[in-house]
Amino acid sequence: MNHTQTMSQRPARRFWGWGALQDHLLAEEASVVAEAIAAHGVDPAGPPPVVQEFTLRPPRVAPPAALGDMFSASAFDRLNHAGGKSYADLVRMWMRQPPEVPDWVCYPPDEAAIVAVLDWASSAGVAVVPYGGGSSVVGGVEPPAQSVAASVSLDLERLDRVIEVDRVSRAALIEGGTYGPDIETQLRPHGLTLRHFPQSFAYSTLGGWIATRAGGHYATLATHIDDFVESTRMVTPAGTVQTRRLPGSGAGPAPDRLILGSEGAFGVITRAWMRVQERPRFRAGRNFRFDTMEAACAALRRLAQSGLHPSNCRLLDAAEVAFARVGDRVSPTLIVAFESANHPVDAWMVLAAEIIADCGGVALLDHGGARAADEWRTVFLRMPYYRDPMVGAGVIVDTFETAVTWDQFPAFYSEVRASVAEAIQRVCKRVAIISCRITHVYPDGPAPYFSYSVRGPEGGLASALAAWRDIKAASNAAVVQFGGTITHHHAVGRDHRSGYDIEVPSLMRSAYLDVKRRFDPAGVMNPGVLIGGL
Amino acid sequence: MNHTQTMSQRPARRFWGWGALQDHLLAEEASVVAEAIAAHGVDPAGPPPVVQEFTLRPPRVAPPAALGDMFSASAFDRLNHAGGKSYADLVRMWMRQPPEVPDWVCYPPDEAAIVAVLDWASSAGVAVVPYGGGSSVVGGVEPPAQSVAASVSLDLERLDRVIEVDRVSRAALIEGGTYGPDIETQLRPHGLTLRHFPQSFAYSTLGGWIATRAGGHYATLATHIDDFVESTRMVTPAGTVQTRRLPGSGAGPAPDRLILGSEGAFGVITRAWMRVQERPRFRAGRNFRFDTMEAACAALRRLAQSGLHPSNCRLLDAAEVAFARVGDRVSPTLIVAFESANHPVDAWMVLAAEIIADCGGVALLDHGGARAADEWRTVFLRMPYYRDPMVGAGVIVDTFETAVTWDQFPAFYSEVRASVAEAIQRVCKRVAIISCRITHVYPDGPAPYFSYSVRGPEGGLASALAAWRDIKAASNAAVVQFGGTITHHHAVGRDHRSGYDIEVPSLMRSAYLDVKRRFDPAGVMNPGVLIGGL
Repeated sequence: MNHTQTMSQRPARRFWGWGALQDHLLAEEASVVAEAIAAHGVDPAGPPPVVQEFTLRPPRVAPPAALGDMFSASAFDRLNHAGGKSYADLVRMWMRQPPEVPDWVCYPPDEAAIVAVLDWASSAGVAVVPYGGGSSVVGGVEPPAQSVAASVSLDLERLDRVIEVDRVSRAALIEGGTYGPDIETQLRPHGLTLRHFPQSFAYSTLGGWIATRAGGHYATLATHIDDFVESTRMVTPAGTVQTRRLPGSGAGPAPDRLILGSEGAFGVITRAWMRVQERPRFRAGRNFRFDTMEAACAALRRLAQSGLHPSNCRLLDAAEVAFARVGDRVSPTLIVAFESANHPVDAWMVLAAEIIADCGGVALLDHGGARAADEWRTVFLRMPYYRDPMVGAGVIVDTFETAVTWDQFPAFYSEVRASVAEAIQRVCKRVAIISCRITHVYPDGPAPYFSYSVRGPEGGLASALAAWRDIKAASNAAVVQFGGTITHHHAVGRDHRSGYDIEVPSLMRSAYLDVKRRFDPAGVMNPGVLIGGL
Repeated sequence: MNHTQTMSQRPARRFWGWGALQDHLLAEEASVVAEAIAAHGVDPAGPPPVVQEFTLRPPRVAPPAALGDMFSASAFDRLNHAGGKSYADLVRMWMRQPPEVPDWVCYPPDEAAIVAVLDWASSAGVAVVPYGGGSSVVGGVEPPAQSVAASVSLDLERLDRVIEVDRVSRAALIEGGTYGPDIETQLRPHGLTLRHFPQSFAYSTLGGWIATRAGGHYATLATHIDDFVESTRMVTPAGTVQTRRLPGSGAGPAPDRLILGSEGAFGVITRAWMRVQERPRFRAGRNFRFDTMEAACAALRRLAQSGLHPSNCRLLDAAEVAFARVGDRVSPTLIVAFESANHPVDAWMVLAAEIIADCGGVALLDHGGARAADEWRTVFLRMPYYRDPMVGAGVIVDTFETAVTWDQFPAFYSEVRASVAEAIQRVCKRVAIISCRITHVYPDGPAPYFSYSVRGPEGGLASALAAWRDIKAASNAAVVQFGGTITHHHAVGRDHRSGYDIEVPSLMRSAYLDVKRRFDPAGVMNPGVLIGGL
């Protein structure tokens, strides 16, 4: 038997980590990771899990015969669709104790097949979990644990085309299951780009981005995928919603905004007209160190309120530059860049540099120098790969992101880190450093992104998982208590529900529940995510 | 008896036209209007209506005694709240045949009073029509004609304060009933501005802007009030929804986006945290003429897709410049301006001018020159005053605005004008010129704004009103048929329902109806507007 048997047409993926089975760390990366693991005082991870180590419950229902050939019950497919890529998702695989695993993985070839699957699932009480690239870090793609007749992971990978390009309006009609790199590959011959580059880029899809309001490349203005959506098409159990292509409108509540962020609880986003752009030809970027985080934040705020709209404007605090080994390794570092397909942007950079100098920022020249942005980008994209061996070795590695207004940020920055450090101390009996970078920035506030890693308590991976749950509860509570949003761009899923239910007024959540009932009367769409009972 | 008796604390307003009773046209304006009326071959209007000419039905219910002192049944108040400022609203007043008039006008002093009024109205089956500045041109503030126990116009004018200013985050908490000029007056001591300047600025309120997704000053980027909303507070019959102040979030469907555009059908927007700005100090602007509309549109599109983000970028077609008497009076004219509180913007203007020159635009120097923008602004703000004597004289004067993608715009521009001209020819037996300006512009398409005036058919104002209804039906149908939105920034109200119900998928409209039922179980909030049966 082939233990990586799959109906997927994509490279076989790790169900216990990031990326494809054949991916590997470069020698120098592996030594950095080994060093980090050793610094935590733990032994390297044993071998990652393989399919043979898992015994899965036989599927509880059979799909209709007419649809059968798009359904897979292979163990590899089911394990790969049992969850996303959160710490909890991965450590449970390393423990060889996966969470709920879907009875089937379905690979619909087209929208008509999706309609048929939702019809069947609604009548049979089978939960349907829409699945894009599976990169959720919030429990967004795991089958429900509560009593359903069965569960199907609906993998959209076959809806992978750029269907139409409107060069004049600079828009493209793209199918929901299209992966980031495939979008760019298909747009490139037209000289166009969507330029949406989340960290998950290689393993996430347009439909997933829209469903989760993913954050992308731009640090200002179009920070989320939301801003590039011209119209959407969503198949729900109650029918299909197709919004109109419009550059702007004031006709009632914006319908696309109810689909954006719906996390599969209303239906399946099968395609969308997206605003695309010409590929940038002009760039200017510089990096700056500051003596203090306060000074760096003052510069960041002035930039955010300047109307200069830098495309990149990321601030790494001292702990973050040390961790990521960028810049001078010790000072808060601000990475600023402008880009344009239309005109040189050096004048913009000069104005930004004046603001930054005025706030005490010093351009990084020799040591670290202009390489900081490149160094950072490399670390950023490789980071998910670094995590896996650490998870297997018993180190808890996690991140959480939010946004908060400027007036609250100073207290927020210290209180949230203190709360999480306190939780780590309590459950892991260790001192951990919580690093912070600001990934996106608005005139009225920043979007900070926190990271930590800590050796789990005695008792192996199970103890580490339990500790992670306590730490996650603490970070959820702190973020909302001190004025932030429970998520700036990682979505709500199941893991953020405790904070979400505080953040969003109950009457509004009741209204969303009504909307869900309209679109999904049988309650089969991604139950427990975002809306309704867990 | 005082025929302008009112409980309003604001200057007494014209129920038959724009502005305050004491407003008047300047002599030169009056002569322009007289000339226009004469050109239509009609006699000047007789005297505008006065309160004594109307006999109103006595209020059908009495408000609760405890709330009574905030209710007015004066004829002047009731007539002033019988509708907005659409052509139909005004002509019916000139006809001395108002539409449905509210039984009461209520001026709640605070939010607690609004809660009490909604409680009472819900239990008594009394319709409540939230009323800001009453500038609706889409039938958004008229009481329902269908059977309700009674109707109350809820005038928010007493909620008129800027409650708090957060200088650091550049945000302000503003009450929903605050008029445009009062917002600016209260922000000015802080060096701040909301910089939202719709044509209705003097007679519209923050809550009205949010409820209708009003369009404002900026031609690019933040084109609607939507983009300045940081959080909202809405009192509904089912309770109060208060969203969290956040600079950005990805937590589920954006709750503010369900309140934006709700047109009073869900509840009353009592306050909002708004993103405000420093007052601009740097400006650069130039105006350009083109030989053809095609060339002008090419320049406009390239500007919109350039990433330069001009604050003003308005294109007037040949008919529009002739009508508004700006520029050289004959050529399509593009008004472009940049502004900033932070830095000189001349470099931006130079880049924009290069694009425009490349498309055949010629800078206006001597004849019309740089005055075009000022001339245009003056005409723009005075235009509502010009309309009134024309309406009274039997001239149909109307506008409609939309947005459409660039690929569709050339056909749209000719087909929509042809359809409306055909309807005018059919019902008025006259040739009318439909002028067009583009008020806002997006990378993927423009927001055109059409205007026309035509002498009504024989039969006086009643015939003119009937003709207007036919023309309005034709413009609604054409806008949606040829790919546009039924409204870019004037809202849906009752007048745009026919197009809205085509534009927005029925399943989505059903979901909105569910949301309405959650917030407004008794169905008393602005019945017939936007959602549900007319």
